[in-house]
Amino acid sequence: MVEWKNLDTYKAYQNLFETKGKVDLAAVMSGESGAERVSKYCVPMADGLAYNFAAKEVNDDIIEKLADLADEAQLAQKFEELYNGAVINTGEKRLVLHHLTRGQLGNDVIADGVNKGEFYKKQQERIAEFAGKVHAGEIVNENGEKFTTVVQIGIGGSDLGPRAIYLALKNWAAANGMLKMRAEFISNVDPDDAACVLESIDIAHSLFIVVSKSGTTLETLTNELFVKNAIEKEGLDASKHMLAVTSETSPMAKNSDYLAAFFMDDYIGGRYSSSSAVGGAVLSLAFGPEVFARFLDGMAAEDKLSACADPKKNPAMLDALIGVYERNIMGYPITALLPYSQALSRFPAHLQQVDMESNGKSVNRFGEEINYKTGAAFFGEPGTNGQHSFYQLLHQGTDIIPLQFIGFKDSQYNIDVEVEGSTSQTKLNANLAAQMVALACGKDDENPNKRFEGNRPSSVIVGEQLTPEACGALLSHYENKIMFQGFLWNVNSFDQEGVQLGKVLAKRVLAHDTDGALKGFSELLGV
Amino acid sequence: MVEWKNLDTYKAYQNLFETKGKVDLAAVMSGESGAERVSKYCVPMADGLAYNFAAKEVNDDIIEKLADLADEAQLAQKFEELYNGAVINTGEKRLVLHHLTRGQLGNDVIADGVNKGEFYKKQQERIAEFAGKVHAGEIVNENGEKFTTVVQIGIGGSDLGPRAIYLALKNWAAANGMLKMRAEFISNVDPDDAACVLESIDIAHSLFIVVSKSGTTLETLTNELFVKNAIEKEGLDASKHMLAVTSETSPMAKNSDYLAAFFMDDYIGGRYSSSSAVGGAVLSLAFGPEVFARFLDGMAAEDKLSACADPKKNPAMLDALIGVYERNIMGYPITALLPYSQALSRFPAHLQQVDMESNGKSVNRFGEEINYKTGAAFFGEPGTNGQHSFYQLLHQGTDIIPLQFIGFKDSQYNIDVEVEGSTSQTKLNANLAAQMVALACGKDDENPNKRFEGNRPSSVIVGEQLTPEACGALLSHYENKIMFQGFLWNVNSFDQEGVQLGKVLAKRVLAHDTDGALKGFSELLGV
Repeated sequence: MVEWKNLDTYKAYQNLFETKGKVDLAAVMSGESGAERVSKYCVPMADGLAYNFAAKEVNDDIIEKLADLADEAQLAQKFEELYNGAVINTGEKRLVLHHLTRGQLGNDVIADGVNKGEFYKKQQERIAEFAGKVHAGEIVNENGEKFTTVVQIGIGGSDLGPRAIYLALKNWAAANGMLKMRAEFISNVDPDDAACVLESIDIAHSLFIVVSKSGTTLETLTNELFVKNAIEKEGLDASKHMLAVTSETSPMAKNSDYLAAFFMDDYIGGRYSSSSAVGGAVLSLAFGPEVFARFLDGMAAEDKLSACADPKKNPAMLDALIGVYERNIMGYPITALLPYSQALSRFPAHLQQVDMESNGKSVNRFGEEINYKTGAAFFGEPGTNGQHSFYQLLHQGTDIIPLQFIGFKDSQYNIDVEVEGSTSQTKLNANLAAQMVALACGKDDENPNKRFEGNRPSSVIVGEQLTPEACGALLSHYENKIMFQGFLWNVNSFDQEGVQLGKVLAKRVLAHDTDGALKGFSELLGV
Repeated sequence: MVEWKNLDTYKAYQNLFETKGKVDLAAVMSGESGAERVSKYCVPMADGLAYNFAAKEVNDDIIEKLADLADEAQLAQKFEELYNGAVINTGEKRLVLHHLTRGQLGNDVIADGVNKGEFYKKQQERIAEFAGKVHAGEIVNENGEKFTTVVQIGIGGSDLGPRAIYLALKNWAAANGMLKMRAEFISNVDPDDAACVLESIDIAHSLFIVVSKSGTTLETLTNELFVKNAIEKEGLDASKHMLAVTSETSPMAKNSDYLAAFFMDDYIGGRYSSSSAVGGAVLSLAFGPEVFARFLDGMAAEDKLSACADPKKNPAMLDALIGVYERNIMGYPITALLPYSQALSRFPAHLQQVDMESNGKSVNRFGEEINYKTGAAFFGEPGTNGQHSFYQLLHQGTDIIPLQFIGFKDSQYNIDVEVEGSTSQTKLNANLAAQMVALACGKDDENPNKRFEGNRPSSVIVGEQLTPEACGALLSHYENKIMFQGFLWNVNSFDQEGVQLGKVLAKRVLAHDTDGALKGFSELLGV
């Protein structure tokens, strides 16, 4: 039986404070000791990926103490409860079942009289069948022509994850002859978002997927109408161009406005829904269902590793523990993700959502205030671009920002050019290696303006190539890392009450029920 | 004569500490007092924009003390020295002249025997003439056909600013019949970046602008060759498709590889180069030189406001002072920019560069270590998207993150849809107003999970529409804000020594001159 306790009640946590500042990163990462750490502090992940934490401010003793914390906090047991169908989302009294969309780690989960694993699988089969017919020209537009473009209309979890994954795999798919349809995304209630996308596509050959679990997301319903107007302006029947991804109980579920509807449910939070029909429909249409299935396989393989109780064999758990060490023992308030892969350009934006929305909480899962820091601010941009942007502060700023890099040995297109004796891909990875050492070791200089203090921690996830499996494994890693951190902080990582007040006040503005500052700002903005 | 002194030597700075925690933001932003603040704490900007700081943790007393600090720190005089041509970039012993690209605030600046204002103007005239010929079909491809696409090849300052501005004005230009050419950007040394862009364009009808001040930026030269190979693979003469933006002394300046070369110089830092030929060439080709001239007019008008010594009439200076108050008195380590405008989606990424690269420093302009925090980590994404992503942490996380919003009364396309009695644009702005009040005032609740503490400060810049002038005014505001913060922190905001060590180590990796951790990471990454 697991016990849900606050982080500061664990003995293993208290034991960690004595280790603070004991690792001189610049020293241990220099010379032979550095080489040793690189080969030793490396945990295999699924699909040939590896998590390397050599350049983090840890040593064997700290890793042991973190393992003690994992044990005392029952991280593995808590995950087991989750995937076996416990009500982990206590605030909303819901199961948390996104892992079931990609594999089954434990028992059958029966909820509302339904085997949920079978339900999710069924939806993916329905999507695969539908996508197959679209690709084969069996489902066509009113002129009997094939659809060439798919547009996802959704916001938050219905947008960021699917968009990030589409961008991550677009080049790979193009290079491997798997790019079946171009995908676009409409999310913002800003009318220029929809107008801009609609201007860039051929509406007559486009399918639109309206994604809203509740069927009531105001941004999404508004953009749905925006798109319908545009379709009808072309003299077309909107219902022949639109699909729905929603829950079976939503107003969108059985509705003749849509060609088809695919289902998710309340046990999958928006930000964890990329592996459900929310990501499945758009990605199966864009790349074919086989590619999406390979993505799910990568997630499932990494989920399996995450179920291991030993953090030294469980990269997501270890990454989570080191992150909590940095946040709560070292006191770093920010973290950044820096993929050395242009294809992962929007991966940080998705994980910013998963991380900050899951663990940006000030009360524990019982609603009690807590006395330690929880989720940190999170941002990221691809390298080497970032090197020419904000890395100045990472190297010489007055705050230390712990980092995580991602790199791949091979590019996706495998088209390259050699300049000054090396390819672009080699230059890319040379820069990544150089940054990690520069940040950790620093460099002295007579001129203090050219001095690098070092001692700036980072880790790296390395893979062979950004394939569908690798992409899935990466996403699973971060989802599970964030889950384990939520367990450690004892927060409910699966609700988001913090977004409610803004919604309530926005409704008041729209109903012209305002006074004071709300009235003032509304008038200022011309509302 | 100005005196360059550390922030903590100013009496006015020390006086600010007694004000810490004296503003109960939730209280003063409630009821009539909130309405009063919204109308009172508002400073006009250029082109109908306004900077509103009602929801910041300040009061009249703090504003007076900040004005004293501005005075004691001689902010206006320092800016005057800068625009009159003093060697403000002490590290590299350079003038800082980006303001001159859009107008002349003070005396003629003569450097290297040249009137620099005239030089920058001349370049813009040359660009305008060239762009005019391209648009008129006088400069055409080898088949005598018009160019339809322009691709910027550059990284950092040669990429982020021009890209952000292109995206900011693309819809406006399309809606107003000013979109002359589609623009694309290649930046990352990751070979998939160039491959992906090249696959998406019609190379035979594309112009490529290679942008590198020194003519030696490795990423950019590598991508130039990548593109040349692709052009030649189509059987075309690359030199008929390529332009250069560089300094007159660079190897790219007089080179038959290019159709034309336009010039900038060492007195314009990369991150401040959007208003020089770096932004001018691509934006004049994309939108026409008249639109770029209007953008520069907006910058010039805002620069003029920034020259005012009274921060209550100088929005960039006031914004800078409030930011330093939040960083150094209140101790907030992060800041975020949240434009309620999808067109500004990459504006935060550009300002992340300008801010973190300029002020992420640990030594003052004399190379002495300083004992206070300088530049904060900076991130941002457009709203309402962010509301469905990381806003949970902004409202209920354990850290306070000071925010700045941006909003416009009108959309760019002016195509809208009414759902439940309001347009999308109205919904967008209703959400913005609601967020500011929710963050400031919070809301009590019996259930602590639904409780909002409030006291989370934000400001907003409001405009009529995101026009070229408004976009220019916005960029100038932030550039000058960051400059004033650099003056306050007494750092050199115009060098970037922190990026050098990584470059040196990357070169060692490429020369196979590695050992220890550098060797380890290189091998791990397949280098």
